[in-house]
This record gives sequence, C-alpha cells and structure tokens, in this order.
Amino acid sequence: MSRDADPLADEFALIAEIFAPLAKADANSFGLTDDAAIISPPAGKDLVVTADMMVAGVHFFADDAPDMIARKLMRVNLSDLAAKGAAPHGYILTVALPRNVTMAWLRSFAKGLAQDQAEFGINLLGGDTTATNGPLCLSLTAMGWVNKGRMLRRAGAQTGDDIYVTGTIGDAVLGLRVRRDGPMAELSADHNQFLLERYLLPQPRNIFTPLLSDLAHAGIDISDGLAADLGHVIQTSSAGAEIQLSEIPLSDAAKALLQLQKADIADLISGGDDYELLLSCAPAHRLAIAEMAVKTGVSITRIGRIISGSEAFYLDENGARVLLKRAGYRHF
Amino acid sequence: MSRDADPLADEFALIAEIFAPLAKADANSFGLTDDAAIISPPAGKDLVVTADMMVAGVHFFADDAPDMIARKLMRVNLSDLAAKGAAPHGYILTVALPRNVTMAWLRSFAKGLAQDQAEFGINLLGGDTTATNGPLCLSLTAMGWVNKGRMLRRAGAQTGDDIYVTGTIGDAVLGLRVRRDGPMAELSADHNQFLLERYLLPQPRNIFTPLLSDLAHAGIDISDGLAADLGHVIQTSSAGAEIQLSEIPLSDAAKALLQLQKADIADLISGGDDYELLLSCAPAHRLAIAEMAVKTGVSITRIGRIISGSEAFYLDENGARVLLKRAGYRHF
Repeated sequence: MSRDADPLADEFALIAEIFAPLAKADANSFGLTDDAAIISPPAGKDLVVTADMMVAGVHFFADDAPDMIARKLMRVNLSDLAAKGAAPHGYILTVALPRNVTMAWLRSFAKGLAQDQAEFGINLLGGDTTATNGPLCLSLTAMGWVNKGRMLRRAGAQTGDDIYVTGTIGDAVLGLRVRRDGPMAELSADHNQFLLERYLLPQPRNIFTPLLSDLAHAGIDISDGLAADLGHVIQTSSAGAEIQLSEIPLSDAAKALLQLQKADIADLISGGDDYELLLSCAPAHRLAIAEMAVKTGVSITRIGRIISGSEAFYLDENGARVLLKRAGYRHF
Repeated sequence: MSRDADPLADEFALIAEIFAPLAKADANSFGLTDDAAIISPPAGKDLVVTADMMVAGVHFFADDAPDMIARKLMRVNLSDLAAKGAAPHGYILTVALPRNVTMAWLRSFAKGLAQDQAEFGINLLGGDTTATNGPLCLSLTAMGWVNKGRMLRRAGAQTGDDIYVTGTIGDAVLGLRVRRDGPMAELSADHNQFLLERYLLPQPRNIFTPLLSDLAHAGIDISDGLAADLGHVIQTSSAGAEIQLSEIPLSDAAKALLQLQKADIADLISGGDDYELLLSCAPAHRLAIAEMAVKTGVSITRIGRIISGSEAFYLDENGARVLLKRAGYRHF
C-alpha cells in the first residue's frame, strides 16, 4: 500500500517535534529534512556498524516506560560498539508505531533517547516512522569509529589468554523475573529494585573503548548469556575455554538468590541481557587491565582462560569439570 | 523479555542458511559471525545513509510474493541513494518474523535480495532477526558513497531551474488498485500487468548516479507522490514551482484511464510509490540531460521550473493556474 494508506496523518509534524531535536547536534543529519544523512569519515578510521530490532512482547513489555524502552534500545546497540572497541558516532532509527501510541508516549521515548545521546556522545542521523497494526517495533542501526583495521573481533582469542568479564553476570535474567512476576518476597526491596533496573536499563561498557583494542585479542558483549556468548568467541576463534564457576562475578542480590536456591549458576550464565563485556586478553596485560578497572570504576574479573580444543568447560572449586544444565551455547 | 523468550529456536541456523550467503561478497561483514560489520571509507568520499521500514498490511500485502517484498524493500532504499547521487555500498537488514513464516518463505525472500544485490551492486553487511506476534516488519538501512561534500540535497533548487522527472508518474498508485481490487475491466491484460508491476517492483534510477551531482542543484525520489515530494524540494529550497500538467509523463495505461475518467491527474501526482527521480537543474544543462536520457534509455522529462515564492502552481495547457483536489503537499 502506498504512503497514503499510512494512518499517521501528521508524520511530518511528528518528525519535526519528536525526532528532529535529537538530530540537531549533527549538521549532517540536515535536521531530518532530507532523504538521507551524511557521515564524513575522518582519515585512518573504519566505521563499525551494528543493528538490533526490538519488538513489544518479545524484547520488552508494551507497558514498560517509554523512556526506558528507548534507552534499552540505544544501549543494546552501544554495547555492541563497546565490545568492538568503537567510539559512538551516530544512529539511524526506524519505528513502527501501533495506533494507540500517543504524543505523550513519544515525548517520553524521545526524552530517553536524548538522555543517552548526551551520556554516550551519539546523535540521531535519520530514520523512518510508520504505522503498524501490530506491536511496537523498533530498529536501531548504530555506527562508531575504530582505528583502521583495529575493530575488536569475536575471532582472535588465543590459547593461554585470560578470559575477563565486566560488572556482574546474571542480574538481568533475575530482573526479568521481577518485572514479570513482581518483587521476590525472599529479597529486600533494594535487591528487587537493583535486579529490575539491571534488566530494564543495561549499562553498556563504552567507558572501556579507548583501551580495548590494545589490551584484548577478542571481545563480545554478553547479550545471549555468558555461556552462549563465550561459545561465539571460542567458535569463531577455533579455541576452547575453561571457566572457574566460583570466579564469575555476582551481585549481592544474585548471591542471595543462589544461597536460597531460588536460582543456580546455570540460570545466571544462560540468561541474556547482561550487556557486560567478555574479553580475551594476553596474560601480559593483567596489570594494565587491573589499572583500567580502577580508572573506570567498573570491575573486570578474570574468570578463566582460553585453551586448545573447541569446547567450553566449567570448573568447580576443586578444578573438576561440571556439567551444567542449559549451559550449552547455541551452535550456528 | 530476554532473548531466551525468542521463539526462533534456531536463529543461528537461519542466519547461516538464509542471510550469510548474502553477506559473503564483502569480507567486512565477517560472514555475519560477529556483532558488527566494518565499512572502510575510501579517501575523498562521504557515506550517505538512509533507511526505510516496511510493515505487512501497511506498505505491502502479507501475501505478496516474498521475493517481491524483499526487492521492494531494497529498491525504496536504493531509490533514496539514487536521488542523493550516491553509489550503493552495503545495507543492514533487521526483520521481525511472524510465527507463520516458513523457511520456504525466507528462501524466496533471500532470493529476491540476492537478485537485486547483483543488479545494483550492493551487499548485506549485518542486521538482526527476531520474532514478533504481529505482522512482518522489515527495516533496511542502506549506505552509499558520494564525493565529499557532493551529496545531492532536497535543498538547493534555484529560481530559473528546470524541473525534471524520470520515467512515468502515477503508475504505482493505479497498480495498487489492481493489486487490491483485481484487474480493471477497462484495461487490457498487458496494461493491468504493467501497472501491477510498477506498484510491486519499483525501478530505482541508480543508473543516473554518476552524473547527477554535476547536473542537478537538487534531487528527491518520488515516494510520497510528485506533488508532495515537489513540496519537499521547494520548501527546503525556499522557492516556488510551476508545473505544466500536460508535460507530466504518463504511461499508456495511465493515459487510457485518464481518457476513461477512471483517474484524474490529481490522483496520479498525489499517489505515492513512483520511485522516480525529481530533479532541479540549471537550463544550461538541457543538452547534457537529453544525452543522459539517451545514454541510459530512461526518459527524463522537463515538466516545469523553479520560481521565486513558496508555492507550487499547476498550469493547464493555456498556462492558467489549476486548483487540484488533493494536490497540496503535506507541510512539515
């Protein structure tokens, strides 16, 4: 059907009020009044491009706060740029809006985008707005710069490398429980709130970007769960891995639930949405990495090492291999 | 909800079989096995970025042939690159798939993409695949190269410029009638088929790309209808326009319907989905533009001129201004 069939009668007013202000910091967006934007490449850089689509009822709840939906959409993409060692530049946003979306909803959505644009130094460059008879559907393509030939890959992990993760693992999958079923009676209000926020608002680790390509052989952001994403790294690197389960960094809230046997470690490393980084680094860089953690104020924990082979093994405190339910990563 | 809630159990197999082959010609896509792709900018070029989202039931019919849906999605974006004078480089594709989408459907969809990749010299770089409880939702971000600072803008039309359009105008909105209501009894089978194809499969005018930035002051592709898109050009250029209605190029099928009073010229210039180019060019280039038409085999027709002011006037054969129903363009 043609654009005429589009029920957003005032698409242009909507773009002018809601989206154009998000594009005004980059003159190459032309205030969203043209068919396209320009990216003018600086010398010696590669452009890193990544995209995620999020659909109401699949990736978030339709009644989540619009600014939080916006920020999660932005952050899952920023997290990919972080894992590749790329400095954020700009993004393209396409949105399919259900008929019940109001201007108030859109204003809150734009406020969330504006907040994260300021925090992470990224600007809206262009996009498309349309209507849908189905659920809200959002697609964001994020772009950032790395020095030529220096994008951090999933492939590249080398036997003997240390494996690190940033922050804590498994909070988001527990936060999803809170979002879906309400606060857990076993936990304090603070712990419930902490887990909920870890699910709703990931903290992408772009703060590490300037250092990563010098310190890491391989990197990925943990979106499918630690086990699955470690699987991606070792598969593309043609390597194996050994992980010390007791070294995996957990939040106090997650520890409390493990203690109460309301969750086990397999849940935490199989759940998704962590948006922490998993890095494979030569042991020679241990000191530099410890310094990076101090400098950024974000913990970086060594949880294992790359070995030869093609499998990931999880070790208990005695060094014995443990068979974890659900821990298997999804093969291609 | 986390990725675990995603019902596409075998997302990775789907990517490997359906999408990875579309990415193999560009090594910087890493075979879709990484979180991001790289674009390595050649010296002296700007990257032009544009995006369109298409939703089943809004922009196409859910039972349209999957390869035609794919090619239309690709071509509406290629058309934007064409209008900006940009040579296609690569694209990012995100898809939300309803649960009834089959592998056969996806194979046909990928076949359509492969066909147009070969025809227009563009490659898949990356993207995202997810599930939806709603209609099929597709988003494509296309990228291409122009010489630095030379992207053709909507803004830039100058008083005295000639206004040109490529191809014929209004076929797609008539083809939409055929798609929706079946063949029109008044028309031959050939004419019905012609209009239907004009609606289903736009012919983006990328063939003009190498010459446009030298010959045109402003350009846009006609997606919202000639009247609306001319409105975009004159508004961003702070100019007016005069269009000779009798000069607007029409196909034989469209002429037949006008003759039978089953359509009028206002319908044809208000309907969308033409994906022809509208160009504003200095009169000094008339000969070069005529030569370009001969060389490409695509007609380019002078339909009017840019005047001072801020309005578009439509003139009858006596040069009198005509008030057209529905011809007003949508303001921002």
